[in-house]
Amino acid sequence: MLEISKNFMDDDFLLDTPAARHLYHNHAAKMPIIDYHCHLSPEMIAEDKPFASITELWLGGDHYKWRAMRANGVDEHYITGNASDEEKFDKWAGTVPYTLRNPLYHWTHLELRTAFGISDILNGNTASEIFAKCNARLQEPDMTPRGLMRRYNVEAVCTTDDPVDTLEHHRSIAESGFEIKVLPTWRPDKAMAIESPENYREYVSLLESASGVSIGSFRELIAALKIRHDFFHEQGCRLADHGLGYVPFSECTADQAESLFAKVMAGEVIGPADTDRLKTAILIELLRMNSDSGWAQQIHFGPLRNVNTRARNELGPDTGFDTIGDFKGAENIASLLDRLDSENKLAKTILYNLNPADNVWVAAMIANFQDGSFPGKIQMGSGWWFNDQIKGMEDQMNALSTQGLLSRFVGMLTDSRSFLSYPRHEYFRRVLCNLIGSDIDRGLIPLCELGRVEQMVEDICYYNAKRYFNF
Amino acid sequence: MLEISKNFMDDDFLLDTPAARHLYHNHAAKMPIIDYHCHLSPEMIAEDKPFASITELWLGGDHYKWRAMRANGVDEHYITGNASDEEKFDKWAGTVPYTLRNPLYHWTHLELRTAFGISDILNGNTASEIFAKCNARLQEPDMTPRGLMRRYNVEAVCTTDDPVDTLEHHRSIAESGFEIKVLPTWRPDKAMAIESPENYREYVSLLESASGVSIGSFRELIAALKIRHDFFHEQGCRLADHGLGYVPFSECTADQAESLFAKVMAGEVIGPADTDRLKTAILIELLRMNSDSGWAQQIHFGPLRNVNTRARNELGPDTGFDTIGDFKGAENIASLLDRLDSENKLAKTILYNLNPADNVWVAAMIANFQDGSFPGKIQMGSGWWFNDQIKGMEDQMNALSTQGLLSRFVGMLTDSRSFLSYPRHEYFRRVLCNLIGSDIDRGLIPLCELGRVEQMVEDICYYNAKRYFNF
Amino acid sequence: MLEISKNFMDDDFLLDTPAARHLYHNHAAKMPIIDYHCHLSPEMIAEDKPFASITELWLGGDHYKWRAMRANGVDEHYITGNASDEEKFDKWAGTVPYTLRNPLYHWTHLELRTAFGISDILNGNTASEIFAKCNARLQEPDMTPRGLMRRYNVEAVCTTDDPVDTLEHHRSIAESGFEIKVLPTWRPDKAMAIESPENYREYVSLLESASGVSIGSFRELIAALKIRHDFFHEQGCRLADHGLGYVPFSECTADQAESLFAKVMAGEVIGPADTDRLKTAILIELLRMNSDSGWAQQIHFGPLRNVNTRARNELGPDTGFDTIGDFKGAENIASLLDRLDSENKLAKTILYNLNPADNVWVAAMIANFQDGSFPGKIQMGSGWWFNDQIKGMEDQMNALSTQGLLSRFVGMLTDSRSFLSYPRHEYFRRVLCNLIGSDIDRGLIPLCELGRVEQMVEDICYYNAKRYFNF
Repeated sequence: MLEISKNFMDDDFLLDTPAARHLYHNHAAKMPIIDYHCHLSPEMIAEDKPFASITELWLGGDHYKWRAMRANGVDEHYITGNASDEEKFDKWAGTVPYTLRNPLYHWTHLELRTAFGISDILNGNTASEIFAKCNARLQEPDMTPRGLMRRYNVEAVCTTDDPVDTLEHHRSIAESGFEIKVLPTWRPDKAMAIESPENYREYVSLLESASGVSIGSFRELIAALKIRHDFFHEQGCRLADHGLGYVPFSECTADQAESLFAKVMAGEVIGPADTDRLKTAILIELLRMNSDSGWAQQIHFGPLRNVNTRARNELGPDTGFDTIGDFKGAENIASLLDRLDSENKLAKTILYNLNPADNVWVAAMIANFQDGSFPGKIQMGSGWWFNDQIKGMEDQMNALSTQGLLSRFVGMLTDSRSFLSYPRHEYFRRVLCNLIGSDIDRGLIPLCELGRVEQMVEDICYYNAKRYFNF
Repeated sequence: MLEISKNFMDDDFLLDTPAARHLYHNHAAKMPIIDYHCHLSPEMIAEDKPFASITELWLGGDHYKWRAMRANGVDEHYITGNASDEEKFDKWAGTVPYTLRNPLYHWTHLELRTAFGISDILNGNTASEIFAKCNARLQEPDMTPRGLMRRYNVEAVCTTDDPVDTLEHHRSIAESGFEIKVLPTWRPDKAMAIESPENYREYVSLLESASGVSIGSFRELIAALKIRHDFFHEQGCRLADHGLGYVPFSECTADQAESLFAKVMAGEVIGPADTDRLKTAILIELLRMNSDSGWAQQIHFGPLRNVNTRARNELGPDTGFDTIGDFKGAENIASLLDRLDSENKLAKTILYNLNPADNVWVAAMIANFQDGSFPGKIQMGSGWWFNDQIKGMEDQMNALSTQGLLSRFVGMLTDSRSFLSYPRHEYFRRVLCNLIGSDIDRGLIPLCELGRVEQMVEDICYYNAKRYFNF
Repeated sequence: MLEISKNFMDDDFLLDTPAARHLYHNHAAKMPIIDYHCHLSPEMIAEDKPFASITELWLGGDHYKWRAMRANGVDEHYITGNASDEEKFDKWAGTVPYTLRNPLYHWTHLELRTAFGISDILNGNTASEIFAKCNARLQEPDMTPRGLMRRYNVEAVCTTDDPVDTLEHHRSIAESGFEIKVLPTWRPDKAMAIESPENYREYVSLLESASGVSIGSFRELIAALKIRHDFFHEQGCRLADHGLGYVPFSECTADQAESLFAKVMAGEVIGPADTDRLKTAILIELLRMNSDSGWAQQIHFGPLRNVNTRARNELGPDTGFDTIGDFKGAENIASLLDRLDSENKLAKTILYNLNPADNVWVAAMIANFQDGSFPGKIQMGSGWWFNDQIKGMEDQMNALSTQGLLSRFVGMLTDSRSFLSYPRHEYFRRVLCNLIGSDIDRGLIPLCELGRVEQMVEDICYYNAKRYFNF
C-alpha cells in the first residue's frame, strides 16, 4: 500500500504544520461567516422552500461545473438541456474523477461532507447511491435555504441587486424575523451599459419608473440613480459593487456627458473613445454617491464576458462563457481613485482583479490611497471567480502580504449563486492558516507574537469585515 | 560531508513522495512517446546516417546552448564560428557548470546518461574524456537518427513542414518500412508573411509551382493552399501549426482581402491595420481548412523574433535571438475562436502561449470553446520553448488544473531540432508525477481513486495524445 | 506549547537545508558588500555626524514604513507631520505587529539585531524601552554613517546623483581617507523630463551653469551633458542609472530632435508621440555616452509615479505614492538595445523591471544581447523596490535561472536612503543560499560540483559585482 502523509480531506486538510492546525481549529473554524458578496436569490431566502433535488442545488446554475462537463466531452443535453435530474447528476458524477486538481473536486466533497454528512467519494460508481442519499436529506426541514445558512454559522450575507429592484424580498426576510442579516448590494452596472442603446433605453425607462424621475438628460439620470441609492440605503444597503471589463478613465466635461448621453438615448452607438468618456462620467458620479452615503464599494474588473456567441444565443449570459481578460489597468485605476481622493469622495474601496498576473500591482496600488482614516480603508479583494482556489487564494494573500497589511484584510466571500458554497469559507480559512502557520513553523513569525497572530486570523475570518462594513 | 536528501539525478530524480515514485516508475515511464510537435529533419530520418560527432548533435543547431555560451562570455567563433568540433565542445563543457539551475544542466546530463550511458558530470575537467566517449559511441549502429528514436520508445513524431514542401522524405521513410510513424505537420506561416512583399511574392510563386494554381487573387491564394492542404492530408498529415507573434483579429471583407492582397503582390508595404486585416482573413481561411479536413490545429503565439539585427545579418534566423513578447492577446483569441465556432468550423485546437504571465487566462480561455464533442477538444499546450523547464511545466499544469481538466491534457512534445531531446519527455513525466504525487501525499487527492490517477498519468503521457490526434 | 521547526530569525533564518546553511555560513556571510545602487546622502557620509534618534534614522525618509502606517490607519500627523520623535516611533512600533508577512517585519528586526544588538520583538509594549535603547546606542561613536558602513563590511557604495551635482561631498569623502569607496552614479532623468517645459527650462539652465555650455539646441544639450558625463568620469563614476516609466522607443531624426527640443524650450507641451520621439533621442544619446566611457548602465522601468495628487501637493514626491505600472515593454526595450548593439554602442546593461509579471520576458530578453564579450554583460537586476522581499527575490532569481545564467548575476543592492539597510544583503544572501541549497538537497545539483557552487555563491554575493563594475 502506498505510504502517504495525510488522508484525503481529513480534519487537518490543507494544514501542514502544528501552527496551522492550532490557528485553524482553535481560531478560524469557530468564526461566524459574513458573506459580504454573493449572488444568492433573496426570493429563495424569503420563500425558504426545500430544494427539489441535489441536481437543482448543484447543477441548476453552476457554470463552474458546466464548464468542467463540457471540457470532459459531455453533451449540452446533460448540462443545461432537457435530460432528467438523475441523468444530469450521473454525468456530473462521471466527470468528477476527471476534475482532480481542480477546485471543483474539493468543493464537491466538502459540500457532501458538511451539508449531507457523506464522506464517500463521488464518481460513476457511487453516483446513484449519493444521488438518493442527498435527495432524501434535502427533504429534511433543516435543509432549506435558511437552514443551510444557519448550518454554516452565517451572520450576514449581501446579495447583488439592481438599482431598479424593489428589494421586496429583503424587506420580507427582515420582517420575517430571520436572525441572519440579508442585505442588498447596489450593483448599477446596467446604468453604465451604454454600448447597446436599445437595451439601455429600456433600462432607463425602468429606472424612471423605479425612481419617479423623468430622465431626459445625464443630470436626470444621476438624479434618478441617487433616489434609488437613497432607497437602498433606507433598506439597509451599505455596500456597492461595480462590475467592469477594463476600468475606463477618460475626462468628460458636463457638456460632453450631456451630449453623449443624448446620443445614446437617441439610439446612437457612440465610438470607443466617447464610450469611455461617458462611462467614466457615470462611474465617477456613482462612486461619489457611495462616498456621500458612507458606504463601502467594490470594483470587480478584468473579465471578458460572453465570448462564445453561439452559446450566448442558445443559452444566454452567465452560462459559463465568460473568461479572464488581459487588459491594462494600473493607470486608469490610479487616475480614478486619485480623482475621487482629490475631491475627498473616495469611499472605502475593495479592488478585485480577475487576472492574477495583476495581483502584485493591485496589491501595491491600494497603498497609494490609504489615508490613515481607517485601517485597511482600501482593500485588495480575495481571489475572485477563476482565482477562488488554493493557488489563487495563496497568490492573492502573498501579494497583499508583501505589498501591504494582510492583517487588515477583510477576507473571504463566496460570490456564489449556491446555498451550498459556504464551505469555501472553510477552504479559505484553511489556506490562510496554512500560510501563516508555515511562516511560524519556519521561524518567519515569532512565536511570542502568537496572541497577535491568533487575533489576526480571527480578524481576517470575521472581525475585519464586521468592522469594515459595519452592517 | 554535507548531508543531502537525494543524490543528483538518481532513479527518483524530481520524485519527492512515495506516490510520485509509484506513478512514475509503474505508469509514466513505460509509456511510448508520441512527439506530436518537433522540428526534426525528415531528410535525416530518411537517410539515417550516423552523426559525425557529439558536437554536431549537440551544438550544430541548438540555440538554447548558444545563448548560454554567449551569456557566459564565449566568443562566437566557438559557438557558430569556425572553431573545431573539439574546441566547440570544450567551450560548451566549460560553460555547463555555469548553467546550474538552468534546464540545460539537466537536459545535458539526462542525455549523457540515457543515450551514452555516461553518468559523469560534464565540466572543463571531464570534457575531453566525455568528448571521446560520445564520439566513439556515436559510431555504433544503434546511434543513428532512427536508432535514437527506437531507443527512446518513440511511436510517432510530427515534423514541421511548409505547404510547398514535397514531403518526399516522409514518403521515403514510410516506404522504407520504418516502424515509427513520421508524419508531416502543415505549417503555413509563410503564406501569412505579408510584411515583406518581395519575399512574399517569391513564396507565392513557389506555391504556384507546388499547387499548379496561378495565383492572381486572394481567392486563388486560398485555392492553392487548399490543394496543398489536401496533398498533406493524403500524405498522412492530420495536424496544422500556426506560429504567430500576437494573434491578429480584425474584420476583413472579401473585397478588402482581394484589394489588400493585390497591393502586397504589387510590392506595397501596407500599414499595420491593413496588415492585421489581411492576416486575419488568411488565418481564418487556413483554420477553416483544418476543420474541413478533420485535423487538429496548434496556435503558437507570443514570440518577438529576430530582435538582434546584427546577429540576424551575421548568423540568420533561428540562431538564438528570438525572445518572449508581452503582447495583449485575450480579446483577439476569443474573437478568432468565436468566429470559427459560430461557423461550426472550429477544429480541435491547442493554444500555446510563450509568455507565462498569460498562463491563467489561456487556461481559462480554452473552456469557453469546449463544446462537449470531444473530451479536451480545446487544449492549453505544454510549457513551450522558454517554458520547457521544471517551473514552466509546473506553472502550465497548475494553471490548467485550476481552470480546466488536467486529466484531459495531451501532454508533452519536444519542439526540438535534436534527436537527443526525447529525455525531455522523461523530465516532463517526472514533473507531472511529482505534482500529482504530492497532492496524493498531502491528502488533496483520495487514495481510493488511485486507479483513476494511474490512468490519468498514462493518459497524459500517452493515451490522450493517441486519441486526440488519431494518427 | 506549539511545536515549531525553527525559532524566529535564528542563525539559520531562511536556511532550510544543511546545504543552504553551509553555503550561507561558510561562503555568503563573509563576503564584503558592494552596494552598487543606493540613495544615500553623500553629504551625510562626508559630515559623518551621529543620528539624533532612531526616529530620524528609521522614519525620517522611509516611504515603505509610511505606507504601512497609513494602511494601518495612522494619521499623517504621526507619519510625516509634527508629532514628536517618540510619538512617531510609538505609532510605528504599534504598526509593526500588523506588518507580519510584510518584509518590513523582517527588516525591522534584522536591523535591531545587527545594528543595535536588540533581539526583542518590537510592538506597542516594547516600544518605549527599545526607543530608549536605540537612542542611547546611537550616541556611541561607531554608530555614525561611516560607522554603520564599516559595521556591515561595506567595500563600496554608489550613490545616485544628478548631472548638475558638484560631487563635492564625494571628493571630500575621498580626500578624508575614508577606506570605503563612495562613488557617484550618473542619473540624468531630469535631462529627459520634457513633460513640464517650465521645470525643464529651469533644469537646462542649471545644466548650462554646471557645464559652461550655452544650450540653445538639442546638440548643445547633448554636448553639455557630455561635459558633465566626463566630469563624473573624472570623479570616479563608472555607472549610470536611467529611471523610466515605460521605455520609449520612437524614431526621431536629428531635425525632429532639434525642432521638438526648440518647442519644449519655448514652453510648449508637445503631444505624447512627439514626447516619445524626443525622449528616445535623448535616451539614445545618453546610452551612447555610457558606452563611449566604458561604463555600466542601469535601466529601471515600470513605476507609475505620484499617483496621489493630494499627497503630492501636501507632501511632495518620494513620500510613498509611487506604484507598480503595467506597461507593455518588450518591443521597445528590444528595439532600444538593438539600436545600440547595431552601432556597437551597447554598454554593460542591467535591466530592472518593477512589475514582477514581466520577470520572465526580461530574463529572456537579456540573452538576446549577450555578445560573448564579457560574462553576463547584460543583466537582469535584482528584485527591485516592491520586489525587494523573499518572494520577489526568489521569483527574480528563478526567472533568471531558467532563462539565463544565475551564476553570472551581479546580485544585490539596497536602493535605499537609509544607513541601516545593509541587512537586506544578508536577507538576499540567505534567500539565495536557500534556493541553491534546496536544489542540492533535492538532487537537482550534483554534490561533486560543490566547489563550483560555493564559488557561484561568493560570485553572486561579491566577486561578480567586483569584476563587472571594476570600480
